[in-house]
Amino acid sequence: MVAVIDDERLSETFAALASTTRRAILGRLADGAATVNDLAAPFELTLPAVSKHIKVLERAGLVVRGQQAQYRPCALDAAPLEAVSTWAEQYRPVWEARFDRMDEYLRQLQTPTKGRSA
Amino acid sequence: MVAVIDDERLSETFAALASTTRRAILGRLADGAATVNDLAAPFELTLPAVSKHIKVLERAGLVVRGQQAQYRPCALDAAPLEAVSTWAEQYRPVWEARFDRMDEYLRQLQTPTKGRSA
Repeated sequence: MVAVIDDERLSETFAALASTTRRAILGRLADGAATVNDLAAPFELTLPAVSKHIKVLERAGLVVRGQQAQYRPCALDAAPLEAVSTWAEQYRPVWEARFDRMDEYLRQLQTPTKGRSA
Repeated sequence: MVAVIDDERLSETFAALASTTRRAILGRLADGAATVNDLAAPFELTLPAVSKHIKVLERAGLVVRGQQAQYRPCALDAAPLEAVSTWAEQYRPVWEARFDRMDEYLRQLQTPTKGRSA
């Protein structure tokens, strides 16, 4: 299997996504841009904690920040998530084969075995 | 956006995928089961290094190991990758909107501005 995806960038994206809080922040930003202050309240995080998470997301290219000096609103850039989806989708034939085998197994369980009662 | 995916499990999957080597091991296992010895050679890794990566993948449910005491072949379980794809696909409308905006911008660049030459 060959994927034309920048490998190092993808590692950084996966590392950034390996946090429930950071994924929740992305979910919030999908509804629109927000400041660090906006993000702190719903997630019960301190401002420095939010800033730290935002920096990780920014480095991974998942968040871009505005230039307004005081607020610098954070916005979602979903492009790296498309790379994640494309990477994972390579394995669709593998997980589908798994479900096909399970279906086949369930069908066998449900089909009365011919000759058993004979 | 709501996703019915086990959050902790997903964090573990993303952490396991944040390594070029571990993703390459999964790529190799997509072609069929392999022993730790089989995996060491192509990746120029020591056996302990491969074992360590395999343990991370096993904990994330991406690799299952056979019971044969000596070889314990490793096999890919792609089910967590379906969860990754499902999670990322939530954001498809966001990245598609981004491309739509870019298309629109390019179209504007290519359309000769009426009245400019007047």
